Amino acid sequence: MAFDTVAVVGGGPGGLRAAQSIADIGGKVLLIEKRDFLGGTPVAENYAGLTPYGAEAEPQMQSMAEAVTSNPNAQVRLSTEVVGFAGEPGSYSVTLRGPDGEESVDVGAVIVATGFQHFDPGRETQFYGYYEYEDVLTLTDLEAMLKQHQVVRPSTGEAPKSLCFIQCVGSRDRQIGNEYCSKVCCGIASKEAIEVRELLPDCKVYIFYIDMRMYGYWESQIYWPAQEKHHVQYVKGMVTEVLKKGDGLLIRGEDTTMGRPMEIPMDMVVLSVGMEPSAGTRTMARVLGVQQNKYGFIEAAGSPLDPVSTDRDGIYACGAALGPADLEDTVSSASNAAMKAMAFVRSQAAAAAN
Amino acid sequence: MAFDTVAVVGGGPGGLRAAQSIADIGGKVLLIEKRDFLGGTPVAENYAGLTPYGAEAEPQMQSMAEAVTSNPNAQVRLSTEVVGFAGEPGSYSVTLRGPDGEESVDVGAVIVATGFQHFDPGRETQFYGYYEYEDVLTLTDLEAMLKQHQVVRPSTGEAPKSLCFIQCVGSRDRQIGNEYCSKVCCGIASKEAIEVRELLPDCKVYIFYIDMRMYGYWESQIYWPAQEKHHVQYVKGMVTEVLKKGDGLLIRGEDTTMGRPMEIPMDMVVLSVGMEPSAGTRTMARVLGVQQNKYGFIEAAGSPLDPVSTDRDGIYACGAALGPADLEDTVSSASNAAMKAMAFVRSQAAAAAN
Repeated sequence: MAFDTVAVVGGGPGGLRAAQSIADIGGKVLLIEKRDFLGGTPVAENYAGLTPYGAEAEPQMQSMAEAVTSNPNAQVRLSTEVVGFAGEPGSYSVTLRGPDGEESVDVGAVIVATGFQHFDPGRETQFYGYYEYEDVLTLTDLEAMLKQHQVVRPSTGEAPKSLCFIQCVGSRDRQIGNEYCSKVCCGIASKEAIEVRELLPDCKVYIFYIDMRMYGYWESQIYWPAQEKHHVQYVKGMVTEVLKKGDGLLIRGEDTTMGRPMEIPMDMVVLSVGMEPSAGTRTMARVLGVQQNKYGFIEAAGSPLDPVSTDRDGIYACGAALGPADLEDTVSSASNAAMKAMAFVRSQAAAAAN
Repeated sequence: MAFDTVAVVGGGPGGLRAAQSIADIGGKVLLIEKRDFLGGTPVAENYAGLTPYGAEAEPQMQSMAEAVTSNPNAQVRLSTEVVGFAGEPGSYSVTLRGPDGEESVDVGAVIVATGFQHFDPGRETQFYGYYEYEDVLTLTDLEAMLKQHQVVRPSTGEAPKSLCFIQCVGSRDRQIGNEYCSKVCCGIASKEAIEVRELLPDCKVYIFYIDMRMYGYWESQIYWPAQEKHHVQYVKGMVTEVLKKGDGLLIRGEDTTMGRPMEIPMDMVVLSVGMEPSAGTRTMARVLGVQQNKYGFIEAAGSPLDPVSTDRDGIYACGAALGPADLEDTVSSASNAAMKAMAFVRSQAAAAAN
């Protein structure tokens, strides 16, 4: 017996794209989301604009969600979690726990689209004072302010005269156990820096970085304009400490280009927190019995030519469930996982018919 | 009248993955390749190992090609070019010119997978002497040597005692007109540097860079081992000139971290040449009438949530036809384009039936 429904776990950009891909070509898909709404992290964490172009996040996610909910081939379960998994490739059974209790559903394949969570800067080994100083924020805290078109110092309610981003908080850091690069923080910090400069032309904006990883078009679309048009100040340097000084903050570290220590007063500090596997990603790896890498993300099969297959037949992952990913990566790998899952379900049905 | 075949132009990693995606889920696909073999740039340019894991390129591409050629839903035309295009979305006609002359084929949608070409270092504004000094190579020249497991100085046939990579040749360079970053050269140079160190443990290997863009897992999979295990020397600096000195070469530039000029003798110099649109990508944009960006790559619709649609209904692009892309990007965006094309063909058929 082979089942034709593909279960997609997670209703963010990856899960929505995977579900829509399947439904649009006539496949049956069951989209399962733990929260009571679709749209994932961009909605839950109040993103203002999507990187790189700055298009408003919420309407974009809304229209992705509507394309899925309005498709007769797609069923959506909100406020629902996958709590059990059994069966064989092609004839799996997932146990769902939702508002109406538990039920088991027959599926032919599963796509994990459970994404990431931001690094908690309270776990940092540097001393950035996120939980001590009101004016120390994360990328997402600032994003929520930008969504309201109002960037102010939480301690005073006034516009900052100076603001800096500290890159690689929770990334490229062996002491924390996250040796990988989170890929998107250079681009997102730069996009936010531009938005702050547009909103507050009198505010000086600095980005302290190890390497600016503005890959591909992010270089020409974000990095050059950030410097030349918006006068964002990029400083290759390590900030090791954020202190309180009078009404403001003081950052301390080393300017690596100038080869000297630096101490700069700053009204606001934004920590560019990296990506870690979400609780959902860790849980799904365990429930589905698929391999995780040492960081807890789901392990891809291995070849760069097949970045979405897990070590278990009929189970695929996409987007940031596999590791740091930008939005373009996420939706493309979601479609890739959808294609693989559809092909798998089809081949199992053909095998069962013979 | 709506046609159900999807034409895929280009038989490299992107085109093969797009074709396989469509064929595997029961769609009809026509794969058109200008060369007389499948496999694209990794085969044509003698890649040794695929980044990041170093898996042998040729057998990997071979098995992708076989999966397509053995699929009854896929037709493959080698030594064939698209020379004409007409019709309406859903009922397009492509004119092919192949070994048996010209013919027109009805297709519902088209995927452009015509990829990139490496920057020609003869056009560089710096003075790296690629066409003057035998021991100045490109990433692909070295890749071909690595495929033969023999890295030697072309001028002497002997193993080099020192070798360096110069990053961003033809990328991040306004004078040349390529402001974008080519995304993969940092990873590929580092992978090759490791391979050289393994082959020639006595050879000192340097990489001169502006920013090391080892995004995501490339940081932990390649960059850390390159430094810690293989002792590749990374120097943040600009090399502006390669000169001849005695039997060897001399590189001249500035060490930006130390803030001082540098002059270092070197047996071999490898230019990390970036990506530009291939001739096929430029031609297909013109033949199909889709928008190109200022660099000549095909322009995606705009949103990061739809990175594969062009400005013309039913025409999609994937991989490096859209801009710099690594292999994982390429195969995922190929599946994304395949999904979009299948959904488009299906919706046109439904519309025509009503």
